[in-house]
Amino acid sequence: MMSISRNDHKVLPRAILYAVGLAAVLGPAVARQRAAPALSYSEIAQTIRVEGLRSEGAFAVLERLLQASPRRMTGSPGYSAAAAAMLREMKNLGLETWLEPVSVEHWIRGTRAEAIVREPDLTDTRPLRIAALGLSVPTPGQGIEASVVEVTTFDELQAMASEVRGKIVFFNHPMNPALMDTFTAYGEAAAYRTRGASEAAKLGAAAVLVRSLTLRRDDAPHAGMVGYDPAAPKIPAAALSTLDSDWLSLRLHKKKELRVSLRIDCRDLGPVESSIVIGQWRGTERPDEIILLGAHLDSWDLGPGAHDDGAGCAQCLEAVRLIRASGVKPKRTIRIALYPNEEFGAGAGLAYARSPRRKGEKHIAAMESDRGGFLPIGFGLGTGAAFEKLKIWEGLLEPSGIQWVRPGGGGADIGPLAEQGTVLMGFIPDNQRYFDYHHSANDVLSAVHPRELELGAIVTAIMTVVVSEEGI
Amino acid sequence: MMSISRNDHKVLPRAILYAVGLAAVLGPAVARQRAAPALSYSEIAQTIRVEGLRSEGAFAVLERLLQASPRRMTGSPGYSAAAAAMLREMKNLGLETWLEPVSVEHWIRGTRAEAIVREPDLTDTRPLRIAALGLSVPTPGQGIEASVVEVTTFDELQAMASEVRGKIVFFNHPMNPALMDTFTAYGEAAAYRTRGASEAAKLGAAAVLVRSLTLRRDDAPHAGMVGYDPAAPKIPAAALSTLDSDWLSLRLHKKKELRVSLRIDCRDLGPVESSIVIGQWRGTERPDEIILLGAHLDSWDLGPGAHDDGAGCAQCLEAVRLIRASGVKPKRTIRIALYPNEEFGAGAGLAYARSPRRKGEKHIAAMESDRGGFLPIGFGLGTGAAFEKLKIWEGLLEPSGIQWVRPGGGGADIGPLAEQGTVLMGFIPDNQRYFDYHHSANDVLSAVHPRELELGAIVTAIMTVVVSEEGI
Repeated sequence: MMSISRNDHKVLPRAILYAVGLAAVLGPAVARQRAAPALSYSEIAQTIRVEGLRSEGAFAVLERLLQASPRRMTGSPGYSAAAAAMLREMKNLGLETWLEPVSVEHWIRGTRAEAIVREPDLTDTRPLRIAALGLSVPTPGQGIEASVVEVTTFDELQAMASEVRGKIVFFNHPMNPALMDTFTAYGEAAAYRTRGASEAAKLGAAAVLVRSLTLRRDDAPHAGMVGYDPAAPKIPAAALSTLDSDWLSLRLHKKKELRVSLRIDCRDLGPVESSIVIGQWRGTERPDEIILLGAHLDSWDLGPGAHDDGAGCAQCLEAVRLIRASGVKPKRTIRIALYPNEEFGAGAGLAYARSPRRKGEKHIAAMESDRGGFLPIGFGLGTGAAFEKLKIWEGLLEPSGIQWVRPGGGGADIGPLAEQGTVLMGFIPDNQRYFDYHHSANDVLSAVHPRELELGAIVTAIMTVVVSEEGI
Repeated sequence: MMSISRNDHKVLPRAILYAVGLAAVLGPAVARQRAAPALSYSEIAQTIRVEGLRSEGAFAVLERLLQASPRRMTGSPGYSAAAAAMLREMKNLGLETWLEPVSVEHWIRGTRAEAIVREPDLTDTRPLRIAALGLSVPTPGQGIEASVVEVTTFDELQAMASEVRGKIVFFNHPMNPALMDTFTAYGEAAAYRTRGASEAAKLGAAAVLVRSLTLRRDDAPHAGMVGYDPAAPKIPAAALSTLDSDWLSLRLHKKKELRVSLRIDCRDLGPVESSIVIGQWRGTERPDEIILLGAHLDSWDLGPGAHDDGAGCAQCLEAVRLIRASGVKPKRTIRIALYPNEEFGAGAGLAYARSPRRKGEKHIAAMESDRGGFLPIGFGLGTGAAFEKLKIWEGLLEPSGIQWVRPGGGGADIGPLAEQGTVLMGFIPDNQRYFDYHHSANDVLSAVHPRELELGAIVTAIMTVVVSEEGI
């Protein structure tokens, strides 16, 4: 079997790369439905890419999803509407479909999220733009009025341990803009959103405000889940927009005493039943071997969740459409799973992996798209022997803009499948813009670029074909 | 001298790459102004990257440029205002500055650009969204009313040769969305914008409408220059928005006869004197050897030209600021040149290269940024021996997101310097979104992402330091 080594032609102009890509016959030919002449993988990859870029079908799916259900919080009627819409899309693709029941959180935001700054010498009160964090307890009915204490790290919190009791702790820890990988910056700063409330509560704090996790200075609170420590009292927790965080910090540096009256009426209604939306294309030769394409259908309710993770859902469906359009009849089964509850800890992915329904099924590979619908830069192709086997296909991905393949892959929902030996894969998009939109009202359709989104579907489709025909 | 080979660590997680980048000492140490401990190139690159990503200074320059002069068509008062603003910016950076006079086009759009479709059975007339193409002649005062003939290629035009006389030829050739490289698609379709008018005029056409060059369906005409063939009569030429192109095409397929009344009152006022804006940082050891950073300051007047090429101007200035902030005192001279007239054929770049002022100067390298302020993907590092010498520095660029280095580099304005042996270099940004904005009212500040823009300045600064200290 011949492979195009990336390094052999990396210095050629792109136009020549196209010509090489077209001429090369990579690997054994694949039978086309009803078609006598066999197509090489590079021809299939080319067909998929051309069809994708011409049609921009992923964007069309995303548009229909957001029209059918612009708010898809797990456990909500909006989620159910989205599930129905995606089920219809799958049926229109000719897939076998079903719903797998799963227990999910049902937390509701309520109708009120107020944080009003009261200063004696301000001619007016000033409302701050906040949003309750997911799973937060509400404030008492009349709200909480307390002084605000700002800290930027847990160390600072501990150093002020004696001054925190009864107060509202304001965690003002920005994402580190100096890091190229914005996910690393997010992961580091997210500790204050997840653990801040309980750490403050242990010191007697009444509530917390947490700086929104974005690299932009904007006026949109960015939501996310709070993680309560069972050893601490549960206190209300809300995200504060970065612009208001900067304003509040400035005011606090000018005055020692500053009171905020906080009122949120969110409620945790306990677990409810929801569903994972499944669409399946049965393999012609080894139907028991499954390649899973996953994304999460739930999203935070402050915006339509276009990138997070409407984009991923649209890409899964579009990848299947592109494979069908290429004429390939997959030997192995291709299954799409769109999960609820990812934003509340990804329990649905775990439930899927451990369900008795998985008996007799063998998930040989899984790919998850949940890093936004941005330009795909690289592709993680599993680890160890799987990576060694798969990396020879890099040349198929390169004409679609993939710059490298590396060991790696995974995602919150497909992660648990690793227990049963599933190879976790997936493309890695550029992440410079992701947190501008993430978990906020900014995450709208117009923030998604049709070509960038489509390229994710294209490279997913190409690798799905390879694994379906070649196995791992 | 040690170099980090990209391929040795390409499979490492990015976090490890950072650690490697920090630990490695690449090449000889560079003396820091007033600082005793010498810094390695990788430390300088890291300092530049961190300062850039923290400050997002390129975006701030761009914002000030667009505020000082939101319209910068060559030869216009807007261009002069922009030149004055950039000169101030350069002075604020501590650069030696001057203006180099150069003759430029002075074509003005006028106040009227109307194309009204008249159909007997339409209850109303329909205005089309058009913009005169640069250098187009005007219509006669009363306008032109004529039937419209649609063609998609020059072959189609020739096949209809006998039917074109006296008519308005509508070139409806879309950019090919199936091509990954949007510049290739642009180059192919641009033939109809540049040559369409003269080809149609040779067959007796009265005027041309040309489908706008963008992959989006939008309502903004995208401008650009028409190139008249001296052997043909000059007829009026205007760009038509893609949405209106599709509408017009649909109407034409329904009816054979469809008349458009066209009126544009643009005028070519002949050449005027303008200036190239120069800022220079004199080298400490070899001041006669110059590294030129170039971009064009003029732009089409339908929008503020944020990407084209405000972005490039801002990146040149920011690259110099970042080098200064890193503490490096360059051995060789770093010069910024911001050109007029690029949109009318880049004559200023040629004039600069051939000016008697270049006597005694040796431009060892030149980098131009004129592909939009998008995420840098690769870096062209000259050709032949220069590339072989420069490619060892790839490891310095990789932590800032550069995926590959290849032979190549250049640009419309720095291109003529190649005659004197200057090595042409430059980063290559992603181009999926560029033509959404290009030459249109869409090319606004909010279409530019501060981090993507900054990364272009960062990698330019890093390679400028290397060439300044090492030579080529």
